[in-house]
Amino acid sequence: MRTYTAPVKDAQFVLHDVLDIAGSGIPGYADLDHDFTEAVLDAAGKVASEILAPLNASGDAEGCQLDNGVVRTPKGFKVAFEALKEGGWNGLDLPEQYGGQGLPYLVGTAVAEFFVSANMAFNMYQGLTHGAIGALLAHGSPAQKATYVPKMLSLAWTGTMNLTEPHCGTDLGLMRTRAEPQEDGSYLITGQKIFISAGEHDLAENIIHMVLAKAPGGGEGTRGISLFIVPKFLVNADGSLGARNAVSCGKVEEKMGIHGNSTCLMNYDGATGCLIGDLHKGMRAMFTMMNEARLGVGLQGYAVAEPAYQGALAYAKDRLQGRAVTGDANPAGPADPLIVHPDIRRNLMEQKSFIEGARAFTYWAASLIDRSRRMGDEAAEGLVSLMIPVLKGFQTDKGFEAAVNAQQIYGGHGYIEETGASQFVRDARIAMIYEGANGVQALDLVGRKMTQDGGKHVMAFFDLVKGFIRENEGDAGLKAQFLDPLKAASKDLQAAAMFFAQQGAKNPDAALAGAYDFMHLFGHVCLGLMWARMAKAAQAALAAGAADGEFYEAKLATGRFYMARQLPATALHLARILTGADPVMALGADAF
Amino acid sequence: MRTYTAPVKDAQFVLHDVLDIAGSGIPGYADLDHDFTEAVLDAAGKVASEILAPLNASGDAEGCQLDNGVVRTPKGFKVAFEALKEGGWNGLDLPEQYGGQGLPYLVGTAVAEFFVSANMAFNMYQGLTHGAIGALLAHGSPAQKATYVPKMLSLAWTGTMNLTEPHCGTDLGLMRTRAEPQEDGSYLITGQKIFISAGEHDLAENIIHMVLAKAPGGGEGTRGISLFIVPKFLVNADGSLGARNAVSCGKVEEKMGIHGNSTCLMNYDGATGCLIGDLHKGMRAMFTMMNEARLGVGLQGYAVAEPAYQGALAYAKDRLQGRAVTGDANPAGPADPLIVHPDIRRNLMEQKSFIEGARAFTYWAASLIDRSRRMGDEAAEGLVSLMIPVLKGFQTDKGFEAAVNAQQIYGGHGYIEETGASQFVRDARIAMIYEGANGVQALDLVGRKMTQDGGKHVMAFFDLVKGFIRENEGDAGLKAQFLDPLKAASKDLQAAAMFFAQQGAKNPDAALAGAYDFMHLFGHVCLGLMWARMAKAAQAALAAGAADGEFYEAKLATGRFYMARQLPATALHLARILTGADPVMALGADAF
Repeated sequence: MRTYTAPVKDAQFVLHDVLDIAGSGIPGYADLDHDFTEAVLDAAGKVASEILAPLNASGDAEGCQLDNGVVRTPKGFKVAFEALKEGGWNGLDLPEQYGGQGLPYLVGTAVAEFFVSANMAFNMYQGLTHGAIGALLAHGSPAQKATYVPKMLSLAWTGTMNLTEPHCGTDLGLMRTRAEPQEDGSYLITGQKIFISAGEHDLAENIIHMVLAKAPGGGEGTRGISLFIVPKFLVNADGSLGARNAVSCGKVEEKMGIHGNSTCLMNYDGATGCLIGDLHKGMRAMFTMMNEARLGVGLQGYAVAEPAYQGALAYAKDRLQGRAVTGDANPAGPADPLIVHPDIRRNLMEQKSFIEGARAFTYWAASLIDRSRRMGDEAAEGLVSLMIPVLKGFQTDKGFEAAVNAQQIYGGHGYIEETGASQFVRDARIAMIYEGANGVQALDLVGRKMTQDGGKHVMAFFDLVKGFIRENEGDAGLKAQFLDPLKAASKDLQAAAMFFAQQGAKNPDAALAGAYDFMHLFGHVCLGLMWARMAKAAQAALAAGAADGEFYEAKLATGRFYMARQLPATALHLARILTGADPVMALGADAF
Repeated sequence: MRTYTAPVKDAQFVLHDVLDIAGSGIPGYADLDHDFTEAVLDAAGKVASEILAPLNASGDAEGCQLDNGVVRTPKGFKVAFEALKEGGWNGLDLPEQYGGQGLPYLVGTAVAEFFVSANMAFNMYQGLTHGAIGALLAHGSPAQKATYVPKMLSLAWTGTMNLTEPHCGTDLGLMRTRAEPQEDGSYLITGQKIFISAGEHDLAENIIHMVLAKAPGGGEGTRGISLFIVPKFLVNADGSLGARNAVSCGKVEEKMGIHGNSTCLMNYDGATGCLIGDLHKGMRAMFTMMNEARLGVGLQGYAVAEPAYQGALAYAKDRLQGRAVTGDANPAGPADPLIVHPDIRRNLMEQKSFIEGARAFTYWAASLIDRSRRMGDEAAEGLVSLMIPVLKGFQTDKGFEAAVNAQQIYGGHGYIEETGASQFVRDARIAMIYEGANGVQALDLVGRKMTQDGGKHVMAFFDLVKGFIRENEGDAGLKAQFLDPLKAASKDLQAAAMFFAQQGAKNPDAALAGAYDFMHLFGHVCLGLMWARMAKAAQAALAAGAADGEFYEAKLATGRFYMARQLPATALHLARILTGADPVMALGADAF
């Protein structure tokens, strides 16, 4: 039950049938025809299932060990990391001038799903590096890019992000790490950072830390923060490695999951760093990449649920227990397979309809990021910025729920580490926390994104939903089972947004008390829209006489489940939101 | 954040203000006045917080080790177990003739909550023994009772329950373990049992296994199953220990949580056993104790959430991060405590309102069991049998959710094992699975309990809710905020029950596809009823000028939160149920 098969066909369905990427007019997308993306996805799927997935359980069991300052990753990780390097996977969607293949971000996203599904902890070594490269490309000087990007792109060196300190996570204004300017223009960095993923390990020659610290003169709070490049080994002018820098790993955390990734406490003891981007604009520099980083975590939400689902499905088909109430399904056997039981089916459908909906939502968001980057499309940028906290918060909550559901299918066997179901639950849990805990996503959505640019992005979202419904109203196959539920859900979302607008500044607690429900309400509408679009695409394929009719019929059945059984949650979220702040805030902090 | 304080005052509120146990007329309850139960609960709370809780984290980290057939429990468990023995805690609610104190089951339940909260894994050694004693008392011969009960009551010996085999859990008809009758009236038991909690350990002189096995002549499926007593060491006629029996532990499972409890694979290799109860009536014998066993697991649901909540609350009051949107709450400090933030407050209120509601529901159910046992009240027996699957399924799902919520409060620190939040999540997870996975509880509720005795128990439940609403309708403090929401939720439950009745035999999948939602719908109505009753009691105390007004005001505020923000979930569950079987079953098993 531990095998993983990359869902290439499902991915292809979203890319081509739903998003029609090759015809989208986004620069670089014209080359992404069906055969091309299939070749990329097949190759990535092979790496995922043959190289990464076999190390997932062993990496979890073994974990990372700190020994005299050196962190040993689990057995097999080095060899697998070499395979990633050789395949050039990290450079897939990075610029050709630094050795990458220059493909759109969307393609990198689709590949990342498979890698995360196969081995989430392992994939973080690459994922963090990819994120650090993004910051370098956006803010680095030409010399910094030339020095660091090619080495990191090839994974000879890896990267990290250093924000959190023991006493501050979300509230970075409390940061204590200091940067002292030196005469040569460099800085000496002193302080302690915690929860640094891939902070120290044995997979690469060098580790490039992107570190937020306070340099003198910037003022209080987050204003004084700057971003610094702090390599583990200093880099000589010719690019060769120099002296060991004064940065060290003080502890590898024992965590609930993602054991294969080394989560480090990092001590900076006057380590040499160089400023990247503008002085005192470190927060802005770090958060330039926020949409991508949060999309990456939202992707983990459903990507880790996928192998959990695959395992549970195989178990449900294989395990004989009880008889179908409507008559024996396996009369020759001692019992029927679990999958005959309606409650098992309900459980599986909840997982399946979430995962496929989330995949479509994630790909769509990634395509909007490409549209924004490659075409300078500000509307796309605004829309995706609005949806990112939804994608991150909703998908990681629901992905965890799906992994818990998958574990439940196994009964007692799911609680035993042997079957692997527990690991997916434990791994999935972190995605709800890091890269901005989901409560912070809800706050970002309601407190910031909803009102950004005068609220025009949320209006654009509503227009988009309305437009889709209007365009397809004449389609009897979509009307009652897809468009009507979507319209009702979208109305709930609008009513909630209206309530927040009315409460507004005079009662900010009312919006904040409903923020979490709003994030989920929004998430359901997004997945409802995705399922309506997928249903339209599936119908079109069936009407065109597609060879694999069963595949498209399954999409329709799965979509109908989502619309009928999951989307009605919007009414509950609205009801909660409309109760305002009182039920939540009435009990004083001291009365708890 | 790892300390635990027993919520004695909250327990007392339910026992006396809400249930008025001393005045209930149940035999044995008249002695349970306020001072008496306070003394018992204070003493139990002291054992829980001073002896059991300090071993919770270390027991989790260390786990149980199998070494040459012997299982070593974590450090400190032996000493703590001796303390339990000395305090006579296991006999609290067991008959005086065997050395117990003969107190009602309700008192044992209240004490069990504290022990589970403090150390769920540890408490299972006692809990399983208590369950095995129940089976002995119900079905054992006088000689069997005399031989085993006193030793088990004193915890000199412990007990286990052996049902599951590798290929069968829920479907016990597939059982392969055999019992061969011997000339002396004993049986030789041969087979393999798995997931046996406390199957082997070093805390007691002997372990008494209650084993289900098939004896010749009983027929197919569950009909041939009998229940046997199989001691680890045979017991001589004088009660002393004899030869080692042919039963051994083949493996200690590696689990997601409850590491401090040894979950064993047990091999019976022609082990000597004696029949308990009637031949071929083993299922009935085992399930006599089902209400208590499932109540015990439902109790674990909220009991493990309680310390998770206590830790999260302390963290939320202590951790400074960000500022309240309505103005600084801690202007002298660098930031405000987390608890000022509405979404943190929402999270805490969800936990708190669930835990307190579940405690009331559990105590009420325990009192119904006493009423049934001590008064032969068949209506009470029918009502509690109806509610038991709800109590088990709903409370363990919600308890897990609460533990996950608690973990979320800590941000990244919650994912690190050090803070303890992860352990509560990992421990809580098992309660959704064992003693009948929650899907099986839903099936038991909809397929069996709803229609039992012509459906009269569910009618009695509805009458009870209606009666409460009618009696209190004139109370303006209850009407809008408690009774109206309760009435709406109860109507949703009735509508769902009506739908199942209409679909009935002609479409059994329709009821089964909605069973899980129905269990949750029912659970919300039960907790809504409990909160309405608690609100009434709190109002009465306030009207009577109770000294601790804040305590009762907090109950009202917490209840209002539940009614306003949680109870409306009933409408969603009903909406899902009314979609019937089609969305769930449309996709054929092969099309997944």
